[in-house]
Amino acid sequence: MTDADIALALRLADAAGDAIRPFFRRRFIRETKEDASPVTEADRASEAAMRRILDAERAEDGIIGEEYGDKNGGANRVWVLDPIDGTRAFVAGRPLFGTLIALIEDGKPVLGVIDQPIIGDRWLGAKGRATLFNGEPAKTRACSGVADAHLGTTSPAAFPGDDLAHFQKLGAAARDVLWGGDCHNYGLVASGHLDAVIESGLKLYDFAALVPVVEGAGGRMTDWQGRDLDRDSAGHVIAAGDPSLIAPIAELLA
Amino acid sequence: MTDADIALALRLADAAGDAIRPFFRRRFIRETKEDASPVTEADRASEAAMRRILDAERAEDGIIGEEYGDKNGGANRVWVLDPIDGTRAFVAGRPLFGTLIALIEDGKPVLGVIDQPIIGDRWLGAKGRATLFNGEPAKTRACSGVADAHLGTTSPAAFPGDDLAHFQKLGAAARDVLWGGDCHNYGLVASGHLDAVIESGLKLYDFAALVPVVEGAGGRMTDWQGRDLDRDSAGHVIAAGDPSLIAPIAELLA
Repeated sequence: MTDADIALALRLADAAGDAIRPFFRRRFIRETKEDASPVTEADRASEAAMRRILDAERAEDGIIGEEYGDKNGGANRVWVLDPIDGTRAFVAGRPLFGTLIALIEDGKPVLGVIDQPIIGDRWLGAKGRATLFNGEPAKTRACSGVADAHLGTTSPAAFPGDDLAHFQKLGAAARDVLWGGDCHNYGLVASGHLDAVIESGLKLYDFAALVPVVEGAGGRMTDWQGRDLDRDSAGHVIAAGDPSLIAPIAELLA
Repeated sequence: MTDADIALALRLADAAGDAIRPFFRRRFIRETKEDASPVTEADRASEAAMRRILDAERAEDGIIGEEYGDKNGGANRVWVLDPIDGTRAFVAGRPLFGTLIALIEDGKPVLGVIDQPIIGDRWLGAKGRATLFNGEPAKTRACSGVADAHLGTTSPAAFPGDDLAHFQKLGAAARDVLWGGDCHNYGLVASGHLDAVIESGLKLYDFAALVPVVEGAGGRMTDWQGRDLDRDSAGHVIAAGDPSLIAPIAELLA
């Protein structure tokens, strides 16, 4: 991962935002995917815009995208794209969706962008560097324990199977739970406004970009057993601003 | 309700936003109220700013405010203020809270403002007039039935007692449910981006401003039995963009 990769990731975010903004709160084609999640013209235009740049500038790198699938996905360097994380919010005219852009090297996310193209919140994380929020360093906050923690999570329906019951046990022990928000919540952890986000059922393109952002701000991201996330993770995610929260959260989720 | 009242309501919203913005994503004093909900310096500064204007300009009118209580609350004309609806979101740095300002005449809300001072979304509803979103007419959308409806609601924890189970029955029958959002969701109904919002446990200051906004855009607001909301309502609220949704929603909530 080079400075040029970071500059390129920001260019991808700019292109995605330019593709999305004309559709926000306007008429657009909307379909329902096999997994019952929505997809719109804006998702596709955003991913296509990013892929055009990557095809031109990083022809040897792989790409894994939510809408257009894999291209050389087994490469050492793979760009992972979620053109609109939070399509339900986008469709409802709520400006809390985001574009997620990650670069994975040897299976580990080393670069991540969370970009909200309507309200202009942008987090940039790069391995070994301080996370930036709109160009300024972002820092997670300390938290004394679960009883004092403000949690975020997107939707009860996003927890498959027994996961919701496990989350509810944790939620009852926490200070409070903020619902909705999708990827934006992870940015709020990085900036020290929320203490942790807990979700399950996430795909690689949902979480790869979040890891460098949260960890570069002083936080930690793991699965529900407190282990490193990687591209084969089953989608159970804990993002804690204060890394000492990981163990007690994992215990309550068990 | 006069043109001067409308102009005054917009001035109140400006003053509330000016009071809130300096605290957003900054350090502020935060306490927990008796009902376990949070309150901050920003809530108090926002309500105090609005009350100063009302005391000077509408000395004979009553005021009911979330943070500073009643002043002549039995008057024919009462201003109802929620300085920050969605304090949990505000505290987490999420720009989806809002200031709610209503004028009640003879027990009925005749004027309402939903103002989001960070992203700049403002809805103005006045009885007998078209609702305005940032100065342009807002219109709800048609919806063929619950199975096609996109619902919004803020939090599972906000439904007291059995209400959550009733909501879940409705949610399972709907197209989907968007969580989080507080008062902003009602603006999205008015603008035709969401089909309905269902909540319970709302106080007068949580819903009075919403009624003129939603109904002036073509929608309808009732309690869970499909009856008019008034200042003695028990806090069960349905806001439907298409009034024909009220009956089937009420049936599923019963």
